[in-house]
Amino acid sequence: MGSITLLIQNGEIVTDGKRFKADVLVEGEAIAEIGENLAVPEGATVIDASGKFVFPGFIDPHVHIHLPFMGTFAKDTHATGSQAALIGGTTTFIEMLAPAGSEDLMDGWRTWTGMAEGHSACDYTFHIGVTRWDDRTEATLRELVGQGMRSFKVFLAYRGAFGIDDAALYRVCRLAAELGVVVTAHCENADLVAELQQKLIAEGKTGPEWHEPSRPESVEAEGTAHFATFVEMTGAHGYVVHLSNARALEAALDARARGVKLDVEVVIPHLTLDKTYAERPGVEGAKYVMSPPLREKGNQPKLWAALERGDIATVATDHCPFDVEQKRMGDGNFTLIPNGIPAIEDRVNVLYTQGVSRGNLSVERFVDAASTRAAQIFGLYPRKGTVSVGSDADLVIYDPAYRGTISAQTSHMNNDYSGYEGWEIDGRPEVVTVRGQVAVQGGAFVGDPARGQLLRR
Amino acid sequence: MGSITLLIQNGEIVTDGKRFKADVLVEGEAIAEIGENLAVPEGATVIDASGKFVFPGFIDPHVHIHLPFMGTFAKDTHATGSQAALIGGTTTFIEMLAPAGSEDLMDGWRTWTGMAEGHSACDYTFHIGVTRWDDRTEATLRELVGQGMRSFKVFLAYRGAFGIDDAALYRVCRLAAELGVVVTAHCENADLVAELQQKLIAEGKTGPEWHEPSRPESVEAEGTAHFATFVEMTGAHGYVVHLSNARALEAALDARARGVKLDVEVVIPHLTLDKTYAERPGVEGAKYVMSPPLREKGNQPKLWAALERGDIATVATDHCPFDVEQKRMGDGNFTLIPNGIPAIEDRVNVLYTQGVSRGNLSVERFVDAASTRAAQIFGLYPRKGTVSVGSDADLVIYDPAYRGTISAQTSHMNNDYSGYEGWEIDGRPEVVTVRGQVAVQGGAFVGDPARGQLLRR
Amino acid sequence: MGSITLLIQNGEIVTDGKRFKADVLVEGEAIAEIGENLAVPEGATVIDASGKFVFPGFIDPHVHIHLPFMGTFAKDTHATGSQAALIGGTTTFIEMLAPAGSEDLMDGWRTWTGMAEGHSACDYTFHIGVTRWDDRTEATLRELVGQGMRSFKVFLAYRGAFGIDDAALYRVCRLAAELGVVVTAHCENADLVAELQQKLIAEGKTGPEWHEPSRPESVEAEGTAHFATFVEMTGAHGYVVHLSNARALEAALDARARGVKLDVEVVIPHLTLDKTYAERPGVEGAKYVMSPPLREKGNQPKLWAALERGDIATVATDHCPFDVEQKRMGDGNFTLIPNGIPAIEDRVNVLYTQGVSRGNLSVERFVDAASTRAAQIFGLYPRKGTVSVGSDADLVIYDPAYRGTISAQTSHMNNDYSGYEGWEIDGRPEVVTVRGQVAVQGGAFVGDPARGQLLRR
Amino acid sequence: MGSITLLIQNGEIVTDGKRFKADVLVEGEAIAEIGENLAVPEGATVIDASGKFVFPGFIDPHVHIHLPFMGTFAKDTHATGSQAALIGGTTTFIEMLAPAGSEDLMDGWRTWTGMAEGHSACDYTFHIGVTRWDDRTEATLRELVGQGMRSFKVFLAYRGAFGIDDAALYRVCRLAAELGVVVTAHCENADLVAELQQKLIAEGKTGPEWHEPSRPESVEAEGTAHFATFVEMTGAHGYVVHLSNARALEAALDARARGVKLDVEVVIPHLTLDKTYAERPGVEGAKYVMSPPLREKGNQPKLWAALERGDIATVATDHCPFDVEQKRMGDGNFTLIPNGIPAIEDRVNVLYTQGVSRGNLSVERFVDAASTRAAQIFGLYPRKGTVSVGSDADLVIYDPAYRGTISAQTSHMNNDYSGYEGWEIDGRPEVVTVRGQVAVQGGAFVGDPARGQLLRR
Repeated sequence: MGSITLLIQNGEIVTDGKRFKADVLVEGEAIAEIGENLAVPEGATVIDASGKFVFPGFIDPHVHIHLPFMGTFAKDTHATGSQAALIGGTTTFIEMLAPAGSEDLMDGWRTWTGMAEGHSACDYTFHIGVTRWDDRTEATLRELVGQGMRSFKVFLAYRGAFGIDDAALYRVCRLAAELGVVVTAHCENADLVAELQQKLIAEGKTGPEWHEPSRPESVEAEGTAHFATFVEMTGAHGYVVHLSNARALEAALDARARGVKLDVEVVIPHLTLDKTYAERPGVEGAKYVMSPPLREKGNQPKLWAALERGDIATVATDHCPFDVEQKRMGDGNFTLIPNGIPAIEDRVNVLYTQGVSRGNLSVERFVDAASTRAAQIFGLYPRKGTVSVGSDADLVIYDPAYRGTISAQTSHMNNDYSGYEGWEIDGRPEVVTVRGQVAVQGGAFVGDPARGQLLRR
Repeated sequence: MGSITLLIQNGEIVTDGKRFKADVLVEGEAIAEIGENLAVPEGATVIDASGKFVFPGFIDPHVHIHLPFMGTFAKDTHATGSQAALIGGTTTFIEMLAPAGSEDLMDGWRTWTGMAEGHSACDYTFHIGVTRWDDRTEATLRELVGQGMRSFKVFLAYRGAFGIDDAALYRVCRLAAELGVVVTAHCENADLVAELQQKLIAEGKTGPEWHEPSRPESVEAEGTAHFATFVEMTGAHGYVVHLSNARALEAALDARARGVKLDVEVVIPHLTLDKTYAERPGVEGAKYVMSPPLREKGNQPKLWAALERGDIATVATDHCPFDVEQKRMGDGNFTLIPNGIPAIEDRVNVLYTQGVSRGNLSVERFVDAASTRAAQIFGLYPRKGTVSVGSDADLVIYDPAYRGTISAQTSHMNNDYSGYEGWEIDGRPEVVTVRGQVAVQGGAFVGDPARGQLLRR
Repeated sequence: MGSITLLIQNGEIVTDGKRFKADVLVEGEAIAEIGENLAVPEGATVIDASGKFVFPGFIDPHVHIHLPFMGTFAKDTHATGSQAALIGGTTTFIEMLAPAGSEDLMDGWRTWTGMAEGHSACDYTFHIGVTRWDDRTEATLRELVGQGMRSFKVFLAYRGAFGIDDAALYRVCRLAAELGVVVTAHCENADLVAELQQKLIAEGKTGPEWHEPSRPESVEAEGTAHFATFVEMTGAHGYVVHLSNARALEAALDARARGVKLDVEVVIPHLTLDKTYAERPGVEGAKYVMSPPLREKGNQPKLWAALERGDIATVATDHCPFDVEQKRMGDGNFTLIPNGIPAIEDRVNVLYTQGVSRGNLSVERFVDAASTRAAQIFGLYPRKGTVSVGSDADLVIYDPAYRGTISAQTSHMNNDYSGYEGWEIDGRPEVVTVRGQVAVQGGAFVGDPARGQLLRR
Repeated sequence: MGSITLLIQNGEIVTDGKRFKADVLVEGEAIAEIGENLAVPEGATVIDASGKFVFPGFIDPHVHIHLPFMGTFAKDTHATGSQAALIGGTTTFIEMLAPAGSEDLMDGWRTWTGMAEGHSACDYTFHIGVTRWDDRTEATLRELVGQGMRSFKVFLAYRGAFGIDDAALYRVCRLAAELGVVVTAHCENADLVAELQQKLIAEGKTGPEWHEPSRPESVEAEGTAHFATFVEMTGAHGYVVHLSNARALEAALDARARGVKLDVEVVIPHLTLDKTYAERPGVEGAKYVMSPPLREKGNQPKLWAALERGDIATVATDHCPFDVEQKRMGDGNFTLIPNGIPAIEDRVNVLYTQGVSRGNLSVERFVDAASTRAAQIFGLYPRKGTVSVGSDADLVIYDPAYRGTISAQTSHMNNDYSGYEGWEIDGRPEVVTVRGQVAVQGGAFVGDPARGQLLRR
């Protein structure tokens, strides 16, 4: 295949906080020119984007594709996950590489990269999960950072599975500070959760509606403040994943106000779904079990407001699909329900609809939160996250006039239910490119299933 | 003169949080194309920016040019002020239009615009100072907003001169919320200052070293919290000007954390000078008297950190030049010292030197704080504040290798002293353009003294 | 009449945080001995308090008896108010001496003391209301402090009636700091209230249900923080009266946490009634209009908890009775409803019932909050507020086994409605003494209607 | 020996927030009467307390007597410790019963009570240290609470010695909430301390001046917030021991402000000594090593202010004497210095001198903080902590006119140095009684060395 030349005409570009009409010329994999009324080069493919937005490809900074968890595996493969992502407008995802139990971290690196390589239709990279601190951990982390993996992931929660203790937490943060990489953290106090789970089960409170009370807001607020102190003590750059409630947000902002370098991520379920979903009886409730749990609806306006003003930096998914049969593992004991809600395909459309269309989010901040800020924080910018000369030509031509409905039946994620079944969407990606190549057209995947590359940062 | 065609080659563009090498083609007054290795159009002027940065023109959102204050007038004219601004890299300023005493606001509008028109070398606009609320105020404000002046300025301080009471403050905020314009505020409690001044003078504490204790940090923190409540109650968008200390910052961030829409500005003197300057004896101290006062040095690291992380949005000057003779008006009584430090020419170079060169600020955030954010907040974006197709071609080609020293003798501001006398600078603007026309070359003004336009927003 | 000798046997004394069984011997006006099985002096009156509590006489630190307000007068006289107080167990009250309009403060002093003298059955003293600052204010205040009136009262609210501006507030606080007296303050921002009232009325929102929205929680929180700053700047001792909600409490505690000397009072209506009462149609709602308004019920648990742990020091009434006809002055315009709910007779019984009986308050803290702390803060301790040798023999023999119902018909306050109509009470004062003399027996006033003295402190 | 009858005449009693002149009659072990000019019973011993204070016996709620720690033992025995306590005015102490390593808790109970029984001159009780959670812990705790030991002690610090993990912390708090007992906690994050120690030692920072940086204020603030969350989650009553700095205080007050039941203790060294003492070279610095460490002097005014206003409830010692030879164990490695400063004899006199004499504390609050509040919190009130009819006759006749100097040479504690060597004291206990029996006269122990009893609560 010869070099691509692609000219996108007449669209309204939204990038880096601004909107303007201009043409975009792609040569090869990158954006070569942006200008008004650009001349059409010979041999160029021309796409008319009149009446449409031209967005930078969206980035999901928090997904699970390959994931052994709670005795089973999340359902997607890199093939299904990446194609669903692209159809939903996401051109880059950052997967949690999270070896469990006794698996060696370097073995995990080989496992995860081996599973992704050649099977992802979009670009991807990894947060390196530090789920243990042993003799080899530091050397392995240094090597993986050297390979361009510039972020770690730690779990304060899930002791016994992924969770680490305070000594390990300190060492991870200190190493990250030295190497200049970001520490992302799941901030729930593991012991409080374990004790509360045990207490509730002992009281016969076994349904999915007890999942939220087993990990209340104060547990997450405590975890957030705790993590912030470790970040502060080591001079690291911290990133709180999937912050779910106003009180935890306050803990994060308090830390920022005293100078701690701390970014905050929200995931699309916490912005749009509340705990009444998980209070549905039986497996209907189980479908909505994730951690931190869906919360009291009263938190949502505060999360949206913090997102709009930028105090919450990014919107991710924590995509983690388990099907109905897997969810049934927790029948009679909510602590055994595999945690997770599938969302990689829906994030952008739901955020646009509930945010931009409903007046909760400016379109500029929508692009910033769902693409640019993740690129900036995780060392992908300006390669990704911007419509800019020299940047990768990952572009989303978005049709705000499209109207549709989300359903598991029409979804491309490998799952048999949708957390957003029947929700209406106002807009969708019309064309999506991966480094200049058209991957999605009119809602269908038309690209190269193996085009995705591992992004070293 | 025919239409300008200007091609800037090989520079490193820094804009909207990213750095990249590309050429910029200007046609007429605007940027027409950005791209790699752009063809040279016929008749184009070509500037080689190798080894230099290409920044968007800087914006100073808080200056005084024409200002009747404390019985005298600030020294600059729109001619001297605008040319000094351009030499320092500032291509747009926002002046406080602040009628004093009984002057009618519409008369003030005519006075200020009349003085600026045809005499400014760079573009400019106004914050409309609301220094009184009478029968005509609301109608006048509506008319001026209709003319494109989309920000107000109020003073909690300076009762008797510019200060307004709480009833007026409420009305200004409510009207601003209705019209969707920003309220900027000087947040010091007027009565506390007046009482403390009187007490200190009565105790024989008359030197400039008592200026700071007459307006302590708690007074500014109170004013900030007070303003934030009015912004909250009315749903307005507030902007705290020249915030000077950590405790006031905490008050602002507390308000933001509960959802109040509040931006914060710092001025270059508070970032770089401390209260020991104003404690110098006699007129040497008086040179450094401004309000809020220069503070304990311990505040500076906290201001820099908040600036770097974006909790402080913008860096301005509060440029307000009074010469040594004027400063002597306060000999024997610090309350009579005209308040202000000249800085419009020095802001960009001092911020670059103390911020970027000293490692306190990334170059991306430097551009954001000194240009982009002001444009975004005050409705000038993306016309100003970005290097982007379609934007005004206000460009600064900045030479980071330049070394020089600030001195009143070589300054272009109309003043006989400099607050930064002898300070070294690491870099300066090599070329500055105003809507495509070269205005500064090698530190000298070479442009059209009347090119500046009133920016309606 | 010869000297009183009174022996109270077998009661359970509750005072100063402790409960113990002992006899109390009163000689003359004071307590002479406390001991086990005290010998009965010749000629002594003996009261058997078996099964009952012996409490120090209760103190209401915030009442209005004579009050010209909103074009009318509160209904009680010192005769009716003091006797109702005693029947309810209150043996001392502190009245707001609040000259209105142009009345001179010293004239006010003569008016108030003249009306009280010889007409009060219980002891009393005054907070000196500073409702204006003119040439004579300071001298008058110094003289009244010299007369033993060691507390001031200021209103941030009610501009035009009692409210003062910031300059006056500063001077009051500074003078209080110098003289070592307490500044009590009504903390609502006057201008915000005035503007919101006007806005609501203009929108046709005229019923009593709009009273609360016209003075929202944030307005009181702002007022509280504002007052705290003035207290801080002057080194005074402040006392926030009738704090009504959790957010204002947070503002007060924030100030305390940074070292500001600030006490907090709650009034019995805010602890027990909520805004739905004032949302009843017409005059039924108007009966419950007071300022700060009755709030969302969700505030009450937070107020009770702060009261129990002592962060709220005292429980008062803000007793201010207007009858139904007066309340009708606000038909069609809630801003004209005279503010106030009668409570001087009910405070102790309602607090005991809702607090001690319902498990919200220990009996020790009940005595502390309704008696001891007020005495300590306002310079009456240990003369009042304790069952202690040498202290005034103001004693309440309280029968916790009594059961009754509150009703306007059986009330002794001069009013034709009760805010607690039909509420059940668990206990009441069986015997109440005023400096050794029995004033109340079995719910009836049996004392000397003129026994009360002005307490100089 | 027949029953004691003791009459203390003419003193100024200070108790429960009040001062008054009265006589105190003691019969047997308790106070029988308080009154003016009490008749002298036949056979009574009469003490004239003219010009002196009569205080309730002081209570030290935090001492170590028998303590195996850091490979050695604290120096005092119950004989030396209790007699030194009495000479210093302390009539009751609460010792930490802290089994180390693998010692069984019930064995520890037998060890500690066995060592104390018959050897203490004053009354005593224990906080039950929970240093491990195993199969027998809960049953043992229930039994010891049944025996009247109504408080637990946990260490977040000292992992490997006394420290417990979060799971155990939760269980302790939950059990305490169920049983209605208090959880006292040493709030420093163990892992952060361990990591920082290791880092400093690795950098060659081995002197005692590095002890403070190894456990910085933020580590204690984090520990305090962490403990507060566990208290909140379980509904327990928490008590933070030896809080040392303003930031940790803020964390505690934040928790209280949201309704967490949390009391705060300060120890006399943190109020009066600062970190420069520990920065003295070699063993001179080592003498001042305790944990949390002595802090920046700037914290002291904030601690005093919080103490005066009651936000800090109690003043204890954390008495823990190691002699100079033991302190030398840490020569060349500050982490091996046995932690502790002896103070049981000096607490009351230093607090009176630095607090009451220097104007930092009212005499009423002094008594409250050093006696009454500890009795109230730990279930000893009104048996101890008050001069009240029926209470134990533990009395201190205090001479405020005495002047003296502290020195190890004249101390009765079993140690060869004093942290307060050469400090002047303004006042001392002239007479001290233990349940009616005179134990101290004129600075000398004259009592029964075995009079002390274990207090069951």
